Amino acid sequence: MTTSSLSPFFTPQGVAVIGASADPSKLGYRLAHNLVDCGYQGAIYFVNPKGGSLLGRQMVRTVAEIPDPVDLAVLLIPAPIVPQTLRECGERGIRAVIISSGGFKETGAEGAALEVECLGIARRYGMRLIGPNCVGVIDTHLPLDTSFLPPPGALAGDMTFVSHSGVICDVAIDWARSLGFGVSRLISLGNQADVTETDVLAPVAADPYTRVITLYLEGVGDGPRFVVEASRASRQKPIVAIKLGRFAGGQRAAASHTGAMVGQDHAFDAAFRRAGVMRANTSEELYDWSRALAWCPLPVGRQVGILTNAGGAGVIAADAVEAIGLHLTDLQDSTKAAMRSVLPAAASVRNPVDMLGSATPEQYAFCLQAMQADPGVDSILVIIPPPPVSTSEAIAEAIIPLIQSANGAYGSSAPGKFAKPVVLALLGGNLVSRAARLFRATHIPDYPFPESAVSALAVLARRAEYLAQPERVAEVLPGLNTLAARKAFEHSGENWISDALTAYGIPIPGVELARSADEASQIAARLGFPVVLKIASPDILHKSDVGGVLLNRTDVESVRLGYEQVVANARLARPQAKISGVHIQRMIPSGQEVILGMVRDAQFGPLVMFGSGGVEVEGLKDVTFELAPLNRVEAEAMLDRTWAGRKLRGFRNIPPADRAAVIDVLMRLAQLAVDFPHLAEIEINPLRVLREGQGAFAVDVRASYKVGIDHRA
Amino acid sequence: MTTSSLSPFFTPQGVAVIGASADPSKLGYRLAHNLVDCGYQGAIYFVNPKGGSLLGRQMVRTVAEIPDPVDLAVLLIPAPIVPQTLRECGERGIRAVIISSGGFKETGAEGAALEVECLGIARRYGMRLIGPNCVGVIDTHLPLDTSFLPPPGALAGDMTFVSHSGVICDVAIDWARSLGFGVSRLISLGNQADVTETDVLAPVAADPYTRVITLYLEGVGDGPRFVVEASRASRQKPIVAIKLGRFAGGQRAAASHTGAMVGQDHAFDAAFRRAGVMRANTSEELYDWSRALAWCPLPVGRQVGILTNAGGAGVIAADAVEAIGLHLTDLQDSTKAAMRSVLPAAASVRNPVDMLGSATPEQYAFCLQAMQADPGVDSILVIIPPPPVSTSEAIAEAIIPLIQSANGAYGSSAPGKFAKPVVLALLGGNLVSRAARLFRATHIPDYPFPESAVSALAVLARRAEYLAQPERVAEVLPGLNTLAARKAFEHSGENWISDALTAYGIPIPGVELARSADEASQIAARLGFPVVLKIASPDILHKSDVGGVLLNRTDVESVRLGYEQVVANARLARPQAKISGVHIQRMIPSGQEVILGMVRDAQFGPLVMFGSGGVEVEGLKDVTFELAPLNRVEAEAMLDRTWAGRKLRGFRNIPPADRAAVIDVLMRLAQLAVDFPHLAEIEINPLRVLREGQGAFAVDVRASYKVGIDHRA
Repeated sequence: MTTSSLSPFFTPQGVAVIGASADPSKLGYRLAHNLVDCGYQGAIYFVNPKGGSLLGRQMVRTVAEIPDPVDLAVLLIPAPIVPQTLRECGERGIRAVIISSGGFKETGAEGAALEVECLGIARRYGMRLIGPNCVGVIDTHLPLDTSFLPPPGALAGDMTFVSHSGVICDVAIDWARSLGFGVSRLISLGNQADVTETDVLAPVAADPYTRVITLYLEGVGDGPRFVVEASRASRQKPIVAIKLGRFAGGQRAAASHTGAMVGQDHAFDAAFRRAGVMRANTSEELYDWSRALAWCPLPVGRQVGILTNAGGAGVIAADAVEAIGLHLTDLQDSTKAAMRSVLPAAASVRNPVDMLGSATPEQYAFCLQAMQADPGVDSILVIIPPPPVSTSEAIAEAIIPLIQSANGAYGSSAPGKFAKPVVLALLGGNLVSRAARLFRATHIPDYPFPESAVSALAVLARRAEYLAQPERVAEVLPGLNTLAARKAFEHSGENWISDALTAYGIPIPGVELARSADEASQIAARLGFPVVLKIASPDILHKSDVGGVLLNRTDVESVRLGYEQVVANARLARPQAKISGVHIQRMIPSGQEVILGMVRDAQFGPLVMFGSGGVEVEGLKDVTFELAPLNRVEAEAMLDRTWAGRKLRGFRNIPPADRAAVIDVLMRLAQLAVDFPHLAEIEINPLRVLREGQGAFAVDVRASYKVGIDHRA
Repeated sequence: MTTSSLSPFFTPQGVAVIGASADPSKLGYRLAHNLVDCGYQGAIYFVNPKGGSLLGRQMVRTVAEIPDPVDLAVLLIPAPIVPQTLRECGERGIRAVIISSGGFKETGAEGAALEVECLGIARRYGMRLIGPNCVGVIDTHLPLDTSFLPPPGALAGDMTFVSHSGVICDVAIDWARSLGFGVSRLISLGNQADVTETDVLAPVAADPYTRVITLYLEGVGDGPRFVVEASRASRQKPIVAIKLGRFAGGQRAAASHTGAMVGQDHAFDAAFRRAGVMRANTSEELYDWSRALAWCPLPVGRQVGILTNAGGAGVIAADAVEAIGLHLTDLQDSTKAAMRSVLPAAASVRNPVDMLGSATPEQYAFCLQAMQADPGVDSILVIIPPPPVSTSEAIAEAIIPLIQSANGAYGSSAPGKFAKPVVLALLGGNLVSRAARLFRATHIPDYPFPESAVSALAVLARRAEYLAQPERVAEVLPGLNTLAARKAFEHSGENWISDALTAYGIPIPGVELARSADEASQIAARLGFPVVLKIASPDILHKSDVGGVLLNRTDVESVRLGYEQVVANARLARPQAKISGVHIQRMIPSGQEVILGMVRDAQFGPLVMFGSGGVEVEGLKDVTFELAPLNRVEAEAMLDRTWAGRKLRGFRNIPPADRAAVIDVLMRLAQLAVDFPHLAEIEINPLRVLREGQGAFAVDVRASYKVGIDHRA
């Protein structure tokens, strides 16, 4: 049970409805009705300056007159009188206020000013606000209903639905009810003058009745805080989110390839991934996944068994299994033999198991049991079209006990318990509706298409894998010279970005001037072999023509000799030339080339990119993004998500390259971005990656640095 | 009205049910019942050796005794007695037989033999067969129902559903009925001993009641014939298809990159595209698209208007519009002003138009009308969540007349007529179900999610664009030397594939031996400039070392001089060396590199590939496939579908390349594959593409040729 300042929103001792109305056409009437009808056990007060009575209760005329206990007020009054009423609530000692009224930020500047005023008042009195311009808060288990939504209200259930959109709350409740799926809490956040989506994560994750948290987001207010809070909450409860406006915000001015590639959406993808939030791509996935996560145990692996009486639907499901990255398990011979013993000869006992249209409820039950007993099966999809012979409800009755005993009785199995989830694809319409009701009554999720059922199994597997991972560990990188990097930025010399990268241990092929053979060999040893020697003379333009270039010197001795030879060659060819020494340059052999980049997202801060580089990065789109900083696991995962990264393992005649060096550079780049918020953008294109053990070098780097802006506020 | 040999299946004069049963637990009873109940107006005969009566009709004991008229028989009798019964049907003069019984190919070798026997008998008597192992044929408009499906039967409607899967017929009918959507014909093909999916396309396309053809396919029997028939049918009626087994068949042995990339699925993609068949990726799309295509007029363009009372759902729809390649139109100022005049200040009149949760039925109607009048809007999505204030059915009643008058009264507007389609997203469950019924009754399709509604609008736009295209024209390529190519294949010389490509006008950088300066200049003129000269001598290994190589000769005179110079250099350096002359080689400058390939699909024949080449083709997956032959439009479209092809137009510092030359090579390669069926596989990797007007050259080619196998059967 949460004891934070948000507690009165969810477990109030007494609720005052300010703007309650005896006029049934008013929302203030409906709100009062919902609060009484829901069965709320605390004190209820209706406040209306006209007095009178409502639902058998005497109305209170002023906030000051509300008796104890009262810690939550719901305001459904005209916007202009909200500030004064808030003050009265503050004086009365009310700690939490839901402002359901509209007429604030959403209407323009005047409304926005009013909203700021409200927040100021709330702060002064130590009150928390939800809204304005929201639908309210529902808890079906306390129970509590402060909404003005039309009946029937939410079914009591397992999902907390948190929404930036008001109307969608109504959709979610109605959708859930029609599928026998219930809500534990509904939180409509409205304009979020005070309480945001991030604030409510901890209290709803702690709610024992909530088995899944479903977020309908227009954005997030404070990106880094969202990531922290959601990461914590998602270890406790699965979080599914849809984020509106994938294409909003447009593209940045393309100063770099990285800048051209990144969209607001990549940042959200990265943030959700980091926080363990499962991002739904469509509203359908949001709803489908929520049901599976609330009702099913989690599988130990990705091996799926499919049981059907319609071969075609089984193949479609098998296609979906492959497409989504699950696996169609090979059933054990004993499983197949058992099934064969009860099925007709034309049936197929290879996964997907096709029992044929003649399948009886008994055959469904027998084969499901056999599949559940097969140790190679992690999760099961049962497909039930309107059966030509028996009824779908007879099949439902035959298999429900098997599913229930395997899943564990609903309510007793802790969410996150591993078992063998079973989901249903109920194909058709009216002819399967009675079976659907039976499954829903026992909390077994059914889907109208094989593909959506498979998608539900996939999200269960992802959730299981997420929980199986150890918690994220931050990684401390050795050899970061923060002082030197700071100096490079502050002095803004010609090589500031090279110097900064070098300070952070990112290899750049260096060039240094040697004035003697000894110095040449020292420099070469420092830069690393092989090196190139080039005569340094303002008077010699074509160095090769005078024997002034020596390639591929691989040891100290050959550099020492080479120094003498180059100088001698030059003296011989051009006796008049002024010779300042010999440039020693690390020679980077050819290798695989990748791009690394960093941009700063307004919402989430530094975002690191990795992928296929060159000029074609925008065309190939083989890039991936991740929030900085990175640990090794995250950096490796970035490589694995791109072809550029997979190719580093070697492919056909391309030899394996130094993946470890790339991972190291990625992590160092991310840390640099975290440590120096002035650094606006970096792009290493290419990073040339040599054979295993030979490193990776930033061959070309561009970067921009914001002077005079301090992001470290 | 079709007069083909298939006519009796759809418009029989008299139907005999052989295996009709008076036992209500038997399928033969249900089949008889369905035939009588559907209201079929022709003659009905029940055949059962035991005689007796059924449904008030005297049963006939033998096929021979069936009186006139009878042209269709439905067999629901044990498989072993089917052949003899078929013979009797033949003797009796019955022209069409549906074998509903199972026990044939699907049960193994014995059943397969029985099936072959049946086909032989049918051929002998000139009978056509549907099945065996099928559900039968339904025509709701004739009406005719030869299925044994459980009641309620199909609703009369607009979709012909053709299925390889039997059980799925039941699903489709039930699904359609639950959405108020009806079937014109249902054809369950079963094992397809005779009649296939391809055979029925022409008759159903000609059916005046059919407005959409929906195919549920396990595969196709004869690929090229399917493409021909489906191309014809799809000009008349929209065809939507789902193809089972995307991942079936596994990968070919990867002899080439092309071979490694191609799957059965690419061939189907290409075949469906060629035939104008819209391939559904999921069962949900199959059903969603069918409803839109049957009920909606087609839009003239891709500009979408969105009307909603829930901002969040509007943004989700807008995201889906962008993601699917439709466009969110900019509403005209007059449209916005009109809307603003009736909406509250906080409403947004920018597309997507958000009328706010308070939207009344009148506001819905007013704004919809304004959107319909806006010339920039091609199609419209109206989103209706359970409205907090009014009811969704009130909104439905307010807008249905507007949609109907714009779409044209249902039944009077020819399918394919251009207008402004309106589709609905009805969000929620129970609270919108009454509105859903109202829309369905007036044939306005509703979808449960904004995304699926947008997908429906997209399929309408695709269909409109398909019909707007001129019919496919085959293209005759100039300069194909078929004789020379044939000779190259027959002689199987060392350069057979180079010679064959050259014969078909595909440029290959040639190498020829010159024995004199004159000959050198003639060869160079023939090969094209610039050329490289290389001394030809078995005794000189390192040609450069002896001055035996001259690059970049750009005219006849410099080649002549070069010949003498190279020979003189070689003589001077190696007086003993035997010199056979000078190799003249077309020098191909660097340029963009692409891959072209061809493999032969077992189902559809030659399949041409284009895309990003190199060794990374399998990793980048930037390739596309198309059936051979290709016309210019198809070849261009292949380029446009890949990054490799788009890049040929130029990108950043990559200059534009000779796209026209690439298109020409693609078409020639496709034609070569068509003309020489022995050619099993070719891969040009890379084709080097020079600047505009400078051509494209097959730098590296590999191919395989099957000897002794004649595919031209």
